[in-house]
Amino acid sequence: MNNLLVAQSGGPTAAINATLAGVLQGVRASGKIDKVYGAKNGIEGAIKGNLIDLNDIVRDTKAMDTLTYTPSSALGTCRYKMKDWRKDDEPYKKIIETFYKYDIKYFIYIGGNDSMDTVDKLSEYCKLNGLDFIIMGAPKTIDNDLNLTDHSPGYGSAAKYIATTIAELACDIGAYDIPAVTIVEIMGRNAGWLTASAALARLNGGPGADLIYLCEKDFDNARFINDVKEKLAVKPGILVAISEGIKDKDGNYVSDQVSSGAVDNFGHKYIAGAARVLENLVRNEIGCKVRSIELNLMQRCAAHIASETDIIESLMLGQKALSCALDGQTGRMAAIKRLSDEPYRVEFISVPVNEVANHEKTVPLNWITPDGHDVTDELISYMKPLIQGETNIKFANGIPMQIKLY
Amino acid sequence: MNNLLVAQSGGPTAAINATLAGVLQGVRASGKIDKVYGAKNGIEGAIKGNLIDLNDIVRDTKAMDTLTYTPSSALGTCRYKMKDWRKDDEPYKKIIETFYKYDIKYFIYIGGNDSMDTVDKLSEYCKLNGLDFIIMGAPKTIDNDLNLTDHSPGYGSAAKYIATTIAELACDIGAYDIPAVTIVEIMGRNAGWLTASAALARLNGGPGADLIYLCEKDFDNARFINDVKEKLAVKPGILVAISEGIKDKDGNYVSDQVSSGAVDNFGHKYIAGAARVLENLVRNEIGCKVRSIELNLMQRCAAHIASETDIIESLMLGQKALSCALDGQTGRMAAIKRLSDEPYRVEFISVPVNEVANHEKTVPLNWITPDGHDVTDELISYMKPLIQGETNIKFANGIPMQIKLY
Repeated sequence: MNNLLVAQSGGPTAAINATLAGVLQGVRASGKIDKVYGAKNGIEGAIKGNLIDLNDIVRDTKAMDTLTYTPSSALGTCRYKMKDWRKDDEPYKKIIETFYKYDIKYFIYIGGNDSMDTVDKLSEYCKLNGLDFIIMGAPKTIDNDLNLTDHSPGYGSAAKYIATTIAELACDIGAYDIPAVTIVEIMGRNAGWLTASAALARLNGGPGADLIYLCEKDFDNARFINDVKEKLAVKPGILVAISEGIKDKDGNYVSDQVSSGAVDNFGHKYIAGAARVLENLVRNEIGCKVRSIELNLMQRCAAHIASETDIIESLMLGQKALSCALDGQTGRMAAIKRLSDEPYRVEFISVPVNEVANHEKTVPLNWITPDGHDVTDELISYMKPLIQGETNIKFANGIPMQIKLY
Repeated sequence: MNNLLVAQSGGPTAAINATLAGVLQGVRASGKIDKVYGAKNGIEGAIKGNLIDLNDIVRDTKAMDTLTYTPSSALGTCRYKMKDWRKDDEPYKKIIETFYKYDIKYFIYIGGNDSMDTVDKLSEYCKLNGLDFIIMGAPKTIDNDLNLTDHSPGYGSAAKYIATTIAELACDIGAYDIPAVTIVEIMGRNAGWLTASAALARLNGGPGADLIYLCEKDFDNARFINDVKEKLAVKPGILVAISEGIKDKDGNYVSDQVSSGAVDNFGHKYIAGAARVLENLVRNEIGCKVRSIELNLMQRCAAHIASETDIIESLMLGQKALSCALDGQTGRMAAIKRLSDEPYRVEFISVPVNEVANHEKTVPLNWITPDGHDVTDELISYMKPLIQGETNIKFANGIPMQIKLY
């Protein structure tokens, strides 16, 4: 039997189900897979033998279409890190047991860094034990920090949400004529790719974000206050975009300046983000109206404003992962190689997963302007193609249609 | 000369520029207005004589279309409350001066409660002083708290953003299988209409928000914790929607439980929202994973997911205000009268502005379920038509096109 198991892992994105749909499209097109299952909640479902029958989806193109545009992980997700099998081979044995039980030959794991670590370890384990299961990875992460792929599926949609939201916030803020600072906190502990996309809000000539601070560059409170004052001298409403992970020169997170000490009336420790810390700083040092905004979970699940480019590439990566698996490739990840920015051209390749797992691709420092509060044209040229196009997401009753698989 | 002045005031919405476009469309269609100007930053622009020439927009249909879909107030906004003219008639004199200087006969003011107060006072002032200027109001507020109109333009778009976002967040949260509570804070100090729209996320059968607390009903911390525990007993990921203005039985804002006392490491007083207070409460009382999200300014300016119904009605209200003005009506506001829910039918009327100004329409208590944490079917039937339809907003370079008038 040639059955296939697919699973999703890590933080949700607006495009991870498009990759799942791509796998299912590939299954259908190839005619080489007998049955297809999903593991519920990532690798945990494979360990526990908790599978979802996806054979109906393969035969229902409408469901496959709805799946493509449904945000988050339709198979559920997990944050499970596999231990080295030399220390604990129990989970590995259980996964193989599930494979045998359901006659699974192929396993495709859609996820980020941790998931690629799982693909790496599991494929190694199979090789060393003479088990000829095929283990392939398909990338996903809004953080865009995966190695060996030009960019990661999910990133383009999150970037489009951020660019659109920043452009809309700039309209909101620009309507007032009193000095005010709005600080928008964007996801990214170590990689500033998402924050950089705030610059795309200016693509049609609008003001967008006035100041952009990525976590790759040391953050200095005094310089920040100075930057804000300079901007306020020119116009009243200032929009600042920051990475949640901005750190001072000693590597301390700006957000730690609050979370380490403040307590509320119940005596609970206060956990605040970097934007709230800077909000208080501006209030104290400048004294003007100030507001902080966290784009929070919305930036990773706003499928209604997903990038068509991102969704199609995510689909293609699912198909590519399947095609590689059918070719007998194992321990590899489907990836994107960019051929040109304009016109935008890519090809779909596969890369060794052990060079992806446990690496983190950050924004090159020379893609940040020398003044430290903006991004260069090179970075804009890199990001711009990824947010192009609006999707064919369907609405019913005024809200986007979504699928539920379990 | 028959010139017209138009202005916008109060908090931005995704639909207030559609009303401005409606006024301009009416100007063009009627052929009865010579020149049309916008006052910059609301009534302040009329007082200071700070006007923007809108005659080109009247002749440029493409610009008029872009204006329709641009969020926030393209003419700028203000939060200026006119004093009684018996105490200080200086601003009134200055406005009349501007009217004479620009040969203005008609003034249309688009805004919420405070703006309708301005329309009321200014029209009264003109009548009592024998000045035959025409002063008309056009409604706008995401809060939906305006009297004498079935609903307010801007509300439907904000509600569609909220319903869509809650549906997407429900997908995100539903992917995890560990107990977690996510609390979403929605605008509304005294009126819970926006928070109620979280219930629309369930229109296609999805889980949406599990618990919904409007500010009209007394909020009780112990009952809230009990509600959350009951929901957690059934499924792991719980989504809670609350109004920013929820209050305890003594009328104290829940948000005051923090803002009154907490300080950060700099010794600054902490200003937190109700969701953050409840986040800490859940962390302390239940101990599970918990997160708070503020929909913040996004809910009022997310034009990319505006309701087509809302945009068209907003346009129509601008046209209606103009038509009433040309008929010689003054001291009145254009408004919507609902004829039926299904099929959804409305008519556009005008109402006396003095019965709108300084009133606040809140959610009737019998539209909240007896358990206090959801809304009734009557409320859903009221809201549902208002979020129907997606707009023809145009994108360029991957982000929505916007207009800038100054």
